[in-house]
Amino acid sequence: MNQESNTRITLKSRPDGYPQPSDFELVEEPIPQPREGEVLIKAIWLSLDPYMRGRMRDVESYAPSVQLGSVIVGGVVGRVVEARTPAFAVGDLVVGPLGWQQYATSDGRNLLRVDTALGPLSTALGILGMPGMTAYFGLLDVCEPKPGDTVVVSAASGAVGQVVGQIAKIMGCRVIGIAGTQEKIDYIVDELGFDVGINYKTQDVMSELALACPLGIDVYFDNVGGEISDAAMENLADFARIAICGQISQYNLAEPALGPRNVRLLTTHQARMEGFLVFQFAARHDQGRRRIAGWIREGKIKYKEDVVEGIENAPAAFIGMMRGENFGKLLVKVSEE
Amino acid sequence: MNQESNTRITLKSRPDGYPQPSDFELVEEPIPQPREGEVLIKAIWLSLDPYMRGRMRDVESYAPSVQLGSVIVGGVVGRVVEARTPAFAVGDLVVGPLGWQQYATSDGRNLLRVDTALGPLSTALGILGMPGMTAYFGLLDVCEPKPGDTVVVSAASGAVGQVVGQIAKIMGCRVIGIAGTQEKIDYIVDELGFDVGINYKTQDVMSELALACPLGIDVYFDNVGGEISDAAMENLADFARIAICGQISQYNLAEPALGPRNVRLLTTHQARMEGFLVFQFAARHDQGRRRIAGWIREGKIKYKEDVVEGIENAPAAFIGMMRGENFGKLLVKVSEE
Repeated sequence: MNQESNTRITLKSRPDGYPQPSDFELVEEPIPQPREGEVLIKAIWLSLDPYMRGRMRDVESYAPSVQLGSVIVGGVVGRVVEARTPAFAVGDLVVGPLGWQQYATSDGRNLLRVDTALGPLSTALGILGMPGMTAYFGLLDVCEPKPGDTVVVSAASGAVGQVVGQIAKIMGCRVIGIAGTQEKIDYIVDELGFDVGINYKTQDVMSELALACPLGIDVYFDNVGGEISDAAMENLADFARIAICGQISQYNLAEPALGPRNVRLLTTHQARMEGFLVFQFAARHDQGRRRIAGWIREGKIKYKEDVVEGIENAPAAFIGMMRGENFGKLLVKVSEE
Repeated sequence: MNQESNTRITLKSRPDGYPQPSDFELVEEPIPQPREGEVLIKAIWLSLDPYMRGRMRDVESYAPSVQLGSVIVGGVVGRVVEARTPAFAVGDLVVGPLGWQQYATSDGRNLLRVDTALGPLSTALGILGMPGMTAYFGLLDVCEPKPGDTVVVSAASGAVGQVVGQIAKIMGCRVIGIAGTQEKIDYIVDELGFDVGINYKTQDVMSELALACPLGIDVYFDNVGGEISDAAMENLADFARIAICGQISQYNLAEPALGPRNVRLLTTHQARMEGFLVFQFAARHDQGRRRIAGWIREGKIKYKEDVVEGIENAPAAFIGMMRGENFGKLLVKVSEE
């Protein structure tokens, strides 16, 4: 990459079904100049997350779509390399939604300083960032687990799922993780201490859940939707809580899918299903971050990152994630720390 | 009817799809004799409710199925005509799950005394009974409405829906009711004070809800499921609450139906969907009953009953209710008060 230019990945066309390499465009532009009051940031880490697929659609949602020809949204950890505001100094490490590009300017309002005492830089996009906060608040506040509860988490080795399961273990729950390769199953059971792993590609999830949860599922943390969620719904315990965090099985369908009309099961089990966004808990993110950092220090929580080198490889890595090919929190190393 | 015998309606066969008259059998049996510690109750009012359809299935649920050849479950208000326990006296008015029959014995554990000061006898099965409590706690505790909220209720003129809408009006909400005849729409709007009525048989519910709820639906009290609920889901406001009370559109399908996989909308709107059973709030039913009775006295709540004469007509009335042919709380007058 020419370090005199700014390599950016823009949205060339809106994916129809699974995204294709041709939906992305790599463009070289001049490095932007910060205006008075702004800073210039050089990206170090770029986060790739499933929510980005939603931004590639042209539909109204909780956040605006990426416009065609615009840089794709994404969380970035970077270093301030030019500062035209007293609020930041050259060398400051920040995290913010700066997109799939090597350089970005900001007036600072969308930036947070990275507390490097809490963990390595990359964790500000993973376990100590949005995915970690999603797991922490989605599990603790939305699902309200109690010790002894049976907790099921889908996409269990992913950025969110791995944290959900480990926090549930810390608080005395029995944890069942669902993932798509034997390697992932081994990891969550042998390394992270989940009680049971179910491989949805080789096992029948409905009957495996029935076997693993003889008293039913008290908490289902749903990252995937679709048939895996159908199986969880059929195995609920009374007063179950279901957090709808993501529905990755549905994101790449050209046509909206049909599934069984099963919400009556919520009545049968007096159960609750709740959607949430991590921003909802923004006022308490610092608390969540400190708690998780503490558990990491104590060895009670581990985390796995899946690192891809070079921003030019972001599209392929993102496409792979849509098919479950990542193993752990997917990050692009844009430049050296 | 021969008053020396006990006319009972039993389940002859399990309905496949909509129940048929041939699924029911009218049998004449001797009036049962109470044993020591029991009372004999003569039924006055029998309640017909959608939940009974679920009991006619042979599947595990929150309550046991009716066995073939057994009397069908149902709430009854009746008078004690023989008492072999000091806990009750002849002439006492009681309510309990005594089934579709003229006479029943009980050891008293499943009986409540009817407080006739609160309202007419029949209301112990309707607005001051299970349906009223379902409305009161389902709306106030599950949906947590706030003044100014937009509340949508399906089956709006039914035993539960009419109460939900009126309590929501009392607390300062905007209320949209969905029902299936113009007569029902006129009733909920002109008599009960709902703001808008939508006729799902003649109008497009999706676009009418969009029109009636420009800021979205804050509370959806769901008695029906199916396509009406799909339309509500597409019109949610952020932080919406959905109570799954009933799914009558699904109860009479021979095969489980498919519908759009739309739970991602819960995430988009940070919304909550919760199933509940009225028993959950049993400890507070007396409070609910007194509150609703007070509102009736003050003229703030009205109620509509749909009365069928004679227990022999219960099957036809029940079958009609499954098709939305009742108008208000459906009751069978089994004998004179």
